[in-house]
Amino acid sequence: MPSLRVALAQVNSTVGDIPGNAAAVRHWTRTAAEAGAQLVAFPEMMITGYPIEDLVFRDSFVAASQAALHTLAADLAADGLGDVAVIVGYVDSDGPAPTDSAALPGTGRRDASALLLGGEIVATYFKHHLPNYGVFDEDRYFEPGDSLTVVRLGGVDVALTVCEDVWQAGGPFAAAGRAGVGLVVNINASPYELDKDDVRLPLVKRRAAEAGATVAYVNMVGGQDELVFDGDSMIVTAEGELLTRAGQFTSELLIHDLELPAASYTSNPSGDAGAAPRASAVAPLGEQRADDGMGIERVAAGTALRPLVDGPAVGGIAERVTDEAEIWSALTLGLHDYVEKNGFRSVVLGLSGGIDSAVVAAIAVDAIGAQRVVGVSMPSGYSSGHSRDDAAELAKRTGLDYRSEPIQPMVDAFLANMSLSGLAVENLQARVRGVILMALSNQEGHLVLTTGNKSELAVGYSTLYGDSVGGFNPLKDVPKTMVWRLAKWRNADAARRGGEPPIPENSIIKPPSAELRPGQVDSDSLPDYDVLDAILAGYIDGDQGHDDLIAAGHDAALVDRILRLVDLAEYKRRQSAPGTKISIKAFGRDRRLPITNRFREGTRQDS
Amino acid sequence: MPSLRVALAQVNSTVGDIPGNAAAVRHWTRTAAEAGAQLVAFPEMMITGYPIEDLVFRDSFVAASQAALHTLAADLAADGLGDVAVIVGYVDSDGPAPTDSAALPGTGRRDASALLLGGEIVATYFKHHLPNYGVFDEDRYFEPGDSLTVVRLGGVDVALTVCEDVWQAGGPFAAAGRAGVGLVVNINASPYELDKDDVRLPLVKRRAAEAGATVAYVNMVGGQDELVFDGDSMIVTAEGELLTRAGQFTSELLIHDLELPAASYTSNPSGDAGAAPRASAVAPLGEQRADDGMGIERVAAGTALRPLVDGPAVGGIAERVTDEAEIWSALTLGLHDYVEKNGFRSVVLGLSGGIDSAVVAAIAVDAIGAQRVVGVSMPSGYSSGHSRDDAAELAKRTGLDYRSEPIQPMVDAFLANMSLSGLAVENLQARVRGVILMALSNQEGHLVLTTGNKSELAVGYSTLYGDSVGGFNPLKDVPKTMVWRLAKWRNADAARRGGEPPIPENSIIKPPSAELRPGQVDSDSLPDYDVLDAILAGYIDGDQGHDDLIAAGHDAALVDRILRLVDLAEYKRRQSAPGTKISIKAFGRDRRLPITNRFREGTRQDS
Repeated sequence: MPSLRVALAQVNSTVGDIPGNAAAVRHWTRTAAEAGAQLVAFPEMMITGYPIEDLVFRDSFVAASQAALHTLAADLAADGLGDVAVIVGYVDSDGPAPTDSAALPGTGRRDASALLLGGEIVATYFKHHLPNYGVFDEDRYFEPGDSLTVVRLGGVDVALTVCEDVWQAGGPFAAAGRAGVGLVVNINASPYELDKDDVRLPLVKRRAAEAGATVAYVNMVGGQDELVFDGDSMIVTAEGELLTRAGQFTSELLIHDLELPAASYTSNPSGDAGAAPRASAVAPLGEQRADDGMGIERVAAGTALRPLVDGPAVGGIAERVTDEAEIWSALTLGLHDYVEKNGFRSVVLGLSGGIDSAVVAAIAVDAIGAQRVVGVSMPSGYSSGHSRDDAAELAKRTGLDYRSEPIQPMVDAFLANMSLSGLAVENLQARVRGVILMALSNQEGHLVLTTGNKSELAVGYSTLYGDSVGGFNPLKDVPKTMVWRLAKWRNADAARRGGEPPIPENSIIKPPSAELRPGQVDSDSLPDYDVLDAILAGYIDGDQGHDDLIAAGHDAALVDRILRLVDLAEYKRRQSAPGTKISIKAFGRDRRLPITNRFREGTRQDS
Repeated sequence: MPSLRVALAQVNSTVGDIPGNAAAVRHWTRTAAEAGAQLVAFPEMMITGYPIEDLVFRDSFVAASQAALHTLAADLAADGLGDVAVIVGYVDSDGPAPTDSAALPGTGRRDASALLLGGEIVATYFKHHLPNYGVFDEDRYFEPGDSLTVVRLGGVDVALTVCEDVWQAGGPFAAAGRAGVGLVVNINASPYELDKDDVRLPLVKRRAAEAGATVAYVNMVGGQDELVFDGDSMIVTAEGELLTRAGQFTSELLIHDLELPAASYTSNPSGDAGAAPRASAVAPLGEQRADDGMGIERVAAGTALRPLVDGPAVGGIAERVTDEAEIWSALTLGLHDYVEKNGFRSVVLGLSGGIDSAVVAAIAVDAIGAQRVVGVSMPSGYSSGHSRDDAAELAKRTGLDYRSEPIQPMVDAFLANMSLSGLAVENLQARVRGVILMALSNQEGHLVLTTGNKSELAVGYSTLYGDSVGGFNPLKDVPKTMVWRLAKWRNADAARRGGEPPIPENSIIKPPSAELRPGQVDSDSLPDYDVLDAILAGYIDGDQGHDDLIAAGHDAALVDRILRLVDLAEYKRRQSAPGTKISIKAFGRDRRLPITNRFREGTRQDS
């Protein structure tokens, strides 16, 4: 059986940084080649970053992606890497974008994979299954391909596929089975969700069985706005054996030697298709089309792969970690990449002494270092002594840049000039804090972090333009109960490593309060967070209605009240800061609801 | 030839108000019946409102829509309207929503049209062409139907279609041609865009020719979040003659007598399908399926239509209006419906004396009346005398509730406690104004209107959480040059009607300024707005790149600067208030771009 040393390049690309992403391909290909790799696979849309959204409609952008691919093929050869096969994702085009999208439903754009070898683009493949659910809008952007590309490489038939192709039965993997390929390479930009890694391995096993071939699954790593990609690349045999698996949230090369069946397909009776490829250019080996509409196109490259040296190369199998560790890594990487890819030098956030701001501060310190994190205590007349103490203690433990800006003089100036009472005074305090943070941002150049957790965002327990101000929110998709779990995990993890737990114990154990009026605590307005979060999970993540939630054992009056709060807070969420998605359904593109919406769960609709 | 009196109910539904929408169907059906109508057609998704977005995934919502349709059929019969055929849009379902959308790409939901007669649901049709571009995500929500429904009604074969079906050749209208129907009823929720009405008539003519039948096109009217629906319902013959056409932005019944060819299809050689329908229930008349996959299902109802009385009923042909009049109506209705459907009693906005706030105030007064509009002058030390005078003059002319809240004491309180300079001080002033408006909103219950025009939003010429605060922005999709045109048009229109022009002439002619530092004018930072708006139209609406814009005659350095400003302001737009879409590409769901995006037009991407 032929051997092939495969490297899965689980690396980080940046949306729109076409030169930087192409340079990363060259860098990682050189590193992989130094380890003897013959085939290096990069993630979906490596050249452009992912998701590029409506940039796909700009001809200049798509042309740049296509030009970069050609240049990259030549550059790799010039680098002395022309005998390494490189599989890389990019955006392709059938021609200029239609000027009138309503008149022409097709976009002519392709979510494409290319195989580069010998300075040439040997083969391309267009993604067949386009996801158009959750955060994905790929029917908006791409035309589906309807043909599987099979490349003869080192005597092995290798099929190219992209991301969603692996999530659905039929189509490319079924075609790979018909084609009798030895290896299917599936390149991904598959966003992180808690527990998604538990789904991936059985999924890849199912597709490997369907194709009757080894599957090499490579996923991107890194943050892009509200998405974070976790890697978790792997190779699984047709029999379902996991050969190697990368970690989550790590940039790495996963290198492994594969014994693969020799290519046997021949396009003519003389049987020369299995022979060595011709000396130059690309040789088509045949084309088939099946009843399901999925065709097969076969090619061989004119350049032989470099020979296998040393060995064997064996990738490890990364251990799975706890939910809290996984989420902490996701939030840390998501924030890190938002800061770095957008060119911020530092971040600023308000430190209330409460759990949310403490956890965000700890995430920020882990993401970019304490010297780049400014924490501001902004006490009012209603702030308890422990609030200031807990904030100061957090600052001391983490080493962040700590300041204090008492808000009372500014609040008093408003109160002296306007007639305000009740909720208006409460919100005024939060808004004065927002103005202070934004002034520091304008004056000193920090990115403002906001700290409202998913439970608060759900029920609207926040002040618009007050505590909600900020360019990024690490906790946007984290329920309050998980915020506490993260805090405890992070402290325990520090203790395990012999370091100082960053989050003051008092911030974890005290009852949560917005401290906007004397003696206020969250439980004045909201049920216990374990009760609240269970209702929210059913309503938001599960699309359960009133009756489903009652049937699940929740109190009917409470369900009515919470669901109404969630519905009425849609206008606030629409103006909220982006934040890293970690759940099956995050606020934002994942959950698209009208603001104007008179549907009320639990009321009769037919009278 | 049989005659049919058709009423197109160009009416306003509200998302989620299923009981209210069903009541509206009963009300308008009664009114149409009193005018002798035999067939009344309501818009797409009349029962639920449109667009319902992710509400479609909630089983409780879809079940309520289906239940309301059954109840409605019975209620119409109980109202004595059982002999009027009513065509109405709703959401249908093949069963409960899939719990795992990734595993099951199909949603099982249908964008459906039903024909009600004799207390029964006689026929249903599922939309075939699903738009998934622009503001539409219908591949996310619905399964496409693959069969045309033809109902024999008063001796005429009537085909049911929905919205996008009329925008694409082939599919249902081609099937209608094969089926030899006499009338195609196309129910719509087609959002307003400037000049869309110019496209609709030729479009309907093309489809009428394709079907070889008269087409009755009925469109919704009203505002829903960022969309406004303009009506423009019409009836066009197979030969392309426009018989009648409703106005834009008006709720009305368009009633017209049609002479239509008698149904001739017969499912068996004895030819009894053309005979009078049986005494009860629904009789299937046959089923065909063509090579393009589009089937035809034919039914006849068991209840005869009420006889035609009096007559003839002749609908008029509404005159087209100027662009400015059309846009003014769109913005007024969009704001009116956002206020009313969300239950606000009043609105508040800052009056700077400038053109943007003056136009928004005039729109608000036209939309909901001066007694429900609060205007607040918030002068600073940098405010010119004319700013206050122009704001006061606007208030006097329109009769809105006028207040003054000088900002200097609050600004000084911040400056005394923080070390701020330059841009931080400019933005501070805008943010103090934002806090004042939000305090008034909290204290008195007003919806805050923000007034940034599309040109400003494009280049980020605004202060986040400052002048951008607000729940709704009437000018969000209106370029600055159009703001001036609207002001001039509104004043001239008032003069034509013998009323007082609402907008002070000085607000129109003076150079625009943010007045955040001494002597500041917009032209310090930006090119003339006619130059700016032309570049923005190319880059945003037209997806033109750097080279296209240079080729169009724009200055290269200016193009680079403006495009960079647009790219860098994406984070501000992501937190901006909703506002009525009037252009081919509005900020928001219409234009989805990443915040993190290093692509820079005009720089080399391949090195």
